[in-house]
Amino acid sequence: MGGTPANQILYYWEDMQPGSVRDLGTVTPTRDEIIAFASQFDPQPFHLDDEAAKASVFGGLCASGWHTCSMAMRLMVTNFLQQSASLGSPGLENVQWKKPVFPNDTLRLKHTILEARPMRSKPDVGLVRTAWDMHNQHGDSVLHMEGWGMFRRRHPAQVVATSD
Amino acid sequence: MGGTPANQILYYWEDMQPGSVRDLGTVTPTRDEIIAFASQFDPQPFHLDDEAAKASVFGGLCASGWHTCSMAMRLMVTNFLQQSASLGSPGLENVQWKKPVFPNDTLRLKHTILEARPMRSKPDVGLVRTAWDMHNQHGDSVLHMEGWGMFRRRHPAQVVATSD
Repeated sequence: MGGTPANQILYYWEDMQPGSVRDLGTVTPTRDEIIAFASQFDPQPFHLDDEAAKASVFGGLCASGWHTCSMAMRLMVTNFLQQSASLGSPGLENVQWKKPVFPNDTLRLKHTILEARPMRSKPDVGLVRTAWDMHNQHGDSVLHMEGWGMFRRRHPAQVVATSD
Repeated sequence: MGGTPANQILYYWEDMQPGSVRDLGTVTPTRDEIIAFASQFDPQPFHLDDEAAKASVFGGLCASGWHTCSMAMRLMVTNFLQQSASLGSPGLENVQWKKPVFPNDTLRLKHTILEARPMRSKPDVGLVRTAWDMHNQHGDSVLHMEGWGMFRRRHPAQVVATSD
Protein backbone atom coordinates (compact mmCIF):
# COMPACT_ATOMS: atom_id res chain seq x y z
CA MET A 1 0.00 0.00 0.00
CA GLY A 2 2.85 2.35 -0.77
CA GLY A 3 4.66 2.45 2.55
CA THR A 4 7.99 0.89 3.46
CA PRO A 5 9.23 -1.82 1.03
CA ALA A 6 8.35 -5.25 2.43
CA ASN A 7 11.97 -6.36 2.80
CA GLN A 8 12.67 -3.45 5.17
CA ILE A 9 9.69 -4.00 7.42
CA LEU A 10 10.52 -5.10 10.95
CA TYR A 11 7.25 -4.23 12.64
CA TYR A 12 3.78 -5.35 11.66
CA TRP A 13 0.61 -4.94 13.71
CA GLU A 14 1.29 -8.20 15.54
CA ASP A 15 4.62 -6.77 16.78
CA MET A 16 2.96 -3.91 18.69
CA GLN A 17 2.62 -5.34 22.17
CA PRO A 18 0.62 -3.27 24.67
CA GLY A 19 2.92 -2.06 27.43
CA SER A 20 6.06 -2.03 25.29
CA VAL A 21 8.11 1.18 25.39
CA ARG A 22 10.59 2.40 22.76
CA ASP A 23 13.21 5.14 22.93
CA LEU A 24 12.99 7.01 19.63
CA GLY A 25 16.08 9.20 20.08
CA THR A 26 16.65 12.93 20.41
CA VAL A 27 16.39 16.20 18.52
CA THR A 28 17.96 19.55 19.42
CA PRO A 29 16.31 22.55 17.75
CA THR A 30 18.43 25.65 17.19
CA ARG A 31 17.24 29.21 17.68
CA ASP A 32 17.28 29.69 13.90
CA GLU A 33 15.13 26.61 13.36
CA ILE A 34 12.63 27.74 16.00
CA ILE A 35 12.35 31.17 14.38
CA ALA A 36 12.14 29.72 10.85
CA PHE A 37 9.24 27.42 11.76
CA ALA A 38 7.42 30.15 13.69
CA SER A 39 7.89 32.69 10.89
CA GLN A 40 6.14 30.34 8.52
CA PHE A 41 3.42 28.81 10.69
CA ASP A 42 3.10 30.49 14.10
CA PRO A 43 4.33 34.10 14.06
CA GLN A 44 3.42 34.98 17.64
CA PRO A 45 5.88 37.36 19.34
CA PHE A 46 7.06 34.82 21.97
CA HIS A 47 8.28 32.50 19.18
CA LEU A 48 10.12 35.23 17.25
CA ASP A 49 11.39 38.01 19.45
CA ASP A 50 13.61 37.77 22.54
CA GLU A 51 12.28 40.88 24.28
CA ALA A 52 8.61 40.01 23.75
CA ALA A 53 9.32 36.44 24.85
CA LYS A 54 11.06 37.55 28.04
CA ALA A 55 7.97 39.54 28.99
CA SER A 56 5.64 36.62 28.19
CA VAL A 57 4.41 33.78 30.39
CA PHE A 58 7.13 31.60 28.79
CA GLY A 59 10.06 33.70 30.03
CA GLY A 60 12.11 33.35 26.85
CA LEU A 61 11.94 32.67 23.13
CA CYS A 62 10.43 29.20 22.68
CA ALA A 63 9.29 26.84 19.93
CA SER A 64 5.78 26.74 18.52
CA GLY A 65 3.88 23.77 19.91
CA TRP A 66 3.35 22.68 16.30
CA HIS A 67 7.12 22.69 15.80
CA THR A 68 7.52 20.47 18.87
CA CYS A 69 4.90 18.04 17.51
CA SER A 70 6.55 18.06 14.08
CA MET A 71 9.99 17.32 15.58
CA ALA A 72 8.45 14.42 17.51
CA MET A 73 6.95 13.16 14.25
CA ARG A 74 10.35 13.23 12.58
CA LEU A 75 11.79 11.01 15.31
CA MET A 76 8.75 8.73 15.08
CA VAL A 77 9.17 8.35 11.30
CA THR A 78 12.95 7.96 11.19
CA ASN A 79 13.32 5.69 14.18
CA PHE A 80 10.12 3.63 14.02
CA LEU A 81 7.57 4.11 11.23
CA GLN A 82 10.13 3.67 8.43
CA GLN A 83 10.79 0.18 9.74
CA SER A 84 7.10 -0.58 10.12
CA ALA A 85 4.09 -1.45 7.98
CA SER A 86 2.47 1.89 8.86
CA LEU A 87 -0.58 3.01 6.89
CA GLY A 88 -1.09 6.44 8.46
CA SER A 89 -3.13 7.80 11.33
CA PRO A 90 -6.73 8.98 11.67
CA GLY A 91 -5.92 11.38 14.51
CA LEU A 92 -4.80 12.16 18.04
CA GLU A 93 -6.19 12.77 21.48
CA ASN A 94 -5.05 14.63 24.56
CA VAL A 95 -2.23 16.77 23.10
CA GLN A 96 -0.52 18.58 25.99
CA TRP A 97 2.25 21.16 25.61
CA LYS A 98 3.50 20.86 29.16
CA LYS A 99 6.59 23.11 29.25
CA PRO A 100 8.14 25.54 26.75
CA VAL A 101 10.88 24.26 24.42
CA PHE A 102 13.85 26.61 24.30
CA PRO A 103 16.69 26.84 21.72
CA ASN A 104 19.26 24.05 22.07
CA ASP A 105 17.08 21.96 24.38
CA THR A 106 17.68 18.27 23.76
CA LEU A 107 14.33 16.52 23.43
CA ARG A 108 14.00 12.77 23.78
CA LEU A 109 10.92 10.94 22.49
CA LYS A 110 9.59 7.67 23.78
CA HIS A 111 6.49 5.87 22.73
CA THR A 112 4.43 3.38 24.63
CA ILE A 113 1.98 0.96 23.02
CA LEU A 114 -1.26 1.37 24.97
CA GLU A 115 -3.67 -0.83 23.07
CA ALA A 116 -3.87 -2.93 19.87
CA ARG A 117 -6.97 -4.25 18.15
CA PRO A 118 -7.88 -5.68 14.75
CA MET A 119 -9.75 -3.44 12.31
CA ARG A 120 -13.11 -5.03 11.74
CA SER A 121 -13.64 -3.55 8.29
CA LYS A 122 -10.17 -4.50 6.96
CA PRO A 123 -8.88 -7.98 7.82
CA ASP A 124 -5.31 -7.09 6.77
CA VAL A 125 -5.07 -3.98 8.98
CA GLY A 126 -4.86 -3.47 12.75
CA LEU A 127 -5.14 -0.39 14.94
CA VAL A 128 -2.66 0.61 17.63
CA ARG A 129 -3.06 3.33 20.27
CA THR A 130 0.23 4.87 21.31
CA ALA A 131 1.36 7.44 23.88
CA TRP A 132 4.05 9.89 22.76
CA ASP A 133 6.14 11.48 25.51
CA MET A 134 8.91 14.00 24.98
CA HIS A 135 11.23 15.17 27.75
CA ASN A 136 13.94 17.82 27.76
CA GLN A 137 17.50 17.47 29.10
CA HIS A 138 16.28 18.39 32.60
CA GLY A 139 13.84 15.47 32.62
CA ASP A 140 10.81 17.76 32.29
CA SER A 141 7.96 16.58 30.12
CA VAL A 142 7.41 19.06 27.27
CA LEU A 143 4.88 17.11 25.17
CA HIS A 144 2.39 14.32 25.69
CA MET A 145 -0.10 13.01 23.18
CA GLU A 146 -1.96 9.83 22.32
CA GLY A 147 -2.63 8.68 18.79
CA TRP A 148 -4.17 5.89 16.77
CA GLY A 149 -2.12 4.34 13.97
CA MET A 150 -3.04 1.79 11.31
CA PHE A 151 -0.57 -1.01 10.54
CA ARG A 152 -0.65 -3.90 8.08
CA ARG A 153 -0.97 -7.31 9.67
CA ARG A 154 1.66 -9.98 9.11
CA HIS A 155 -1.16 -12.53 9.02
CA PRO A 156 -4.51 -11.16 7.81
CA ALA A 157 -7.52 -12.37 9.75
CA GLN A 158 -9.34 -15.31 8.20
CA VAL A 159 -13.06 -14.97 7.74
CA VAL A 160 -14.27 -18.45 8.62
CA ALA A 161 -17.81 -19.57 7.90
CA THR A 162 -18.99 -22.35 10.19
CA SER A 163 -22.21 -24.22 10.46
CA ASP A 164 -22.00 -24.44 14.25
CA MET B 1 2.71 39.71 28.89
CA GLY B 2 4.54 39.99 25.62
CA GLY B 3 1.75 39.34 23.12
CA THR B 4 0.04 41.80 20.83
CA PRO B 5 0.55 45.49 21.74
CA ALA B 6 -2.47 46.74 23.69
CA ASN B 7 -3.50 49.32 21.08
CA GLN B 8 -3.88 46.56 18.44
CA ILE B 9 -6.00 44.24 20.56
CA LEU B 10 -9.56 43.79 19.39
CA TYR B 11 -10.43 40.62 21.26
CA TYR B 12 -10.13 39.99 24.98
CA TRP B 13 -11.53 37.00 26.86
CA GLU B 14 -14.87 38.79 27.31
CA ASP B 15 -15.22 39.01 23.52
CA MET B 16 -15.21 35.22 23.04
CA GLN B 17 -18.91 34.39 23.02
CA PRO B 18 -19.81 30.69 23.04
CA GLY B 19 -21.52 29.79 19.78
CA SER B 20 -19.80 32.48 17.73
CA VAL B 21 -18.19 31.33 14.47
CA ARG B 22 -15.39 33.08 12.56
CA ASP B 23 -14.11 32.51 9.03
CA LEU B 24 -10.31 32.64 9.24
CA GLY B 25 -9.58 32.59 5.50
CA THR B 26 -7.86 30.15 3.18
CA VAL B 27 -4.47 28.63 2.39
CA THR B 28 -3.45 26.72 -0.75
CA PRO B 29 -0.37 24.52 -0.30
CA THR B 30 1.72 23.80 -3.39
CA ARG B 31 3.28 20.44 -4.20
CA ASP B 32 6.72 21.90 -3.43
CA GLU B 33 5.55 23.14 -0.01
CA ILE B 34 4.02 19.74 0.82
CA ILE B 35 7.26 17.96 -0.10
CA ALA B 36 9.45 20.52 1.73
CA PHE B 37 7.49 20.11 4.98
CA ALA B 38 7.41 16.31 4.70
CA SER B 39 11.14 16.12 3.88
CA GLN B 40 11.89 17.93 7.12
CA PHE B 41 9.31 16.47 9.52
CA ASP B 42 7.38 13.53 8.05
CA PRO B 43 9.35 11.72 5.33
CA GLN B 44 6.85 8.93 4.69
CA PRO B 45 6.64 7.82 1.03
CA PHE B 46 3.03 8.98 0.50
CA HIS B 47 4.06 12.58 1.36
CA LEU B 48 7.13 12.58 -0.94
CA ASP B 49 6.76 10.31 -3.92
CA ASP B 50 3.96 10.23 -6.51
CA GLU B 51 4.24 6.54 -7.34
CA ALA B 52 4.30 5.40 -3.72
CA ALA B 53 1.43 7.74 -2.92
CA LYS B 54 -0.71 6.41 -5.81
CA ALA B 55 -0.33 2.90 -4.42
CA SER B 56 -1.19 4.04 -0.86
CA VAL B 57 -4.55 4.33 0.89
CA PHE B 58 -4.47 8.06 0.07
CA GLY B 59 -4.44 7.62 -3.72
CA GLY B 60 -2.01 10.46 -4.39
CA LEU B 61 0.74 12.59 -2.89
CA CYS B 62 -0.72 14.38 0.12
CA ALA B 63 0.33 16.69 2.96
CA SER B 64 1.56 15.52 6.35
CA GLY B 65 -1.18 15.90 8.93
CA TRP B 66 1.26 18.06 10.89
CA HIS B 67 1.60 20.34 7.87
CA THR B 68 -2.20 20.66 7.72
CA CYS B 69 -2.31 21.56 11.42
CA SER B 70 0.53 24.06 10.98
CA MET B 71 -1.22 25.74 8.04
CA ALA B 72 -4.38 26.01 10.17
CA MET B 73 -2.29 27.60 12.92
CA ARG B 74 -0.94 30.20 10.50
CA LEU B 75 -4.49 31.24 9.57
CA MET B 76 -5.45 31.27 13.25
CA VAL B 77 -2.50 33.54 14.14
CA THR B 78 -2.71 35.93 11.18
CA ASN B 79 -6.49 36.30 11.11
CA PHE B 80 -7.37 36.07 14.79
CA LEU B 81 -4.70 35.65 17.48
CA GLN B 82 -2.67 38.66 16.30
CA GLN B 83 -5.69 40.84 17.04
CA SER B 84 -6.32 39.18 20.39
CA ALA B 85 -4.94 39.16 23.92
CA SER B 86 -3.80 35.54 23.47
CA LEU B 87 -1.45 34.03 26.04
CA GLY B 88 -0.88 30.64 24.40
CA SER B 89 -2.49 27.22 24.69
CA PRO B 90 -2.03 24.28 27.05
CA GLY B 91 -3.13 21.71 24.46
CA LEU B 92 -5.69 20.13 22.17
CA GLU B 93 -8.21 17.33 22.11
CA ASN B 94 -9.81 15.21 19.42
CA VAL B 95 -7.50 15.94 16.46
CA GLN B 96 -8.98 14.26 13.38
CA TRP B 97 -7.34 14.15 9.95
CA LYS B 98 -10.51 13.38 8.05
CA LYS B 99 -9.43 13.44 4.38
CA PRO B 100 -6.06 13.79 2.63
CA VAL B 101 -4.89 17.27 1.60
CA PHE B 102 -3.58 17.29 -1.98
CA PRO B 103 -1.39 19.89 -3.74
CA ASN B 104 -3.25 23.07 -4.68
CA ASP B 105 -6.28 22.25 -2.53
CA THR B 106 -7.78 25.43 -1.11
CA LEU B 107 -8.37 24.97 2.60
CA ARG B 108 -10.68 27.23 4.55
CA LEU B 109 -10.52 27.43 8.34
CA LYS B 110 -13.35 28.38 10.63
CA HIS B 111 -13.35 28.44 14.36
CA THR B 112 -16.25 28.16 16.74
CA ILE B 113 -16.15 29.26 20.37
CA LEU B 114 -17.47 26.29 22.36
CA GLU B 115 -17.01 27.43 25.94
CA ALA B 116 -15.48 30.27 27.97
CA ARG B 117 -14.69 30.34 31.67
CA PRO B 118 -12.59 32.42 34.05
CA MET B 119 -9.28 31.00 35.24
CA ARG B 120 -9.60 30.56 38.96
CA SER B 121 -5.87 30.85 39.67
CA LYS B 122 -5.38 34.03 37.59
CA PRO B 123 -8.01 36.75 37.91
CA ASP B 124 -6.75 38.55 34.78
CA VAL B 125 -6.91 35.47 32.50
CA GLY B 126 -9.79 33.46 31.03
CA LEU B 127 -9.93 30.13 29.22
CA VAL B 128 -11.70 29.51 25.93
CA ARG B 129 -12.42 26.17 24.25
CA THR B 130 -12.53 26.40 20.48
CA ALA B 131 -13.33 24.01 17.61
CA TRP B 132 -11.13 24.30 14.52
CA ASP B 133 -12.63 23.04 11.25
CA MET B 134 -10.87 23.05 7.91
CA HIS B 135 -12.63 22.19 4.64
CA ASN B 136 -11.29 21.83 1.11
CA GLN B 137 -12.70 23.39 -2.07
CA HIS B 138 -15.10 20.43 -2.44
CA GLY B 139 -16.63 21.14 0.97
CA ASP B 140 -15.03 18.05 2.51
CA SER B 141 -13.77 18.34 6.06
CA VAL B 142 -10.02 17.64 6.15
CA LEU B 143 -9.24 18.61 9.76
CA HIS B 144 -11.13 18.94 13.01
CA MET B 145 -9.66 19.68 16.42
CA GLU B 146 -10.62 21.28 19.71
CA GLY B 147 -8.27 23.38 21.79
CA TRP B 148 -8.06 25.43 24.95
CA GLY B 149 -6.62 28.93 24.74
CA MET B 150 -5.75 31.47 27.44
CA PHE B 151 -6.70 35.12 26.92
CA ARG B 152 -6.22 38.24 29.01
CA ARG B 153 -9.40 39.70 30.42
CA ARG B 154 -10.45 43.24 29.62
CA HIS B 155 -11.70 43.54 33.21
CA PRO B 156 -9.85 41.36 35.73
CA ALA B 157 -12.08 39.64 38.26
CA GLN B 158 -12.35 41.44 41.59
CA VAL B 159 -11.70 39.44 44.69
CA VAL B 160 -14.28 40.85 47.09
CA ALA B 161 -14.17 40.07 50.79
CA THR B 162 -17.55 40.32 52.46
CA SER B 163 -18.69 39.77 55.97
CA ASP B 164 -22.04 38.31 54.89
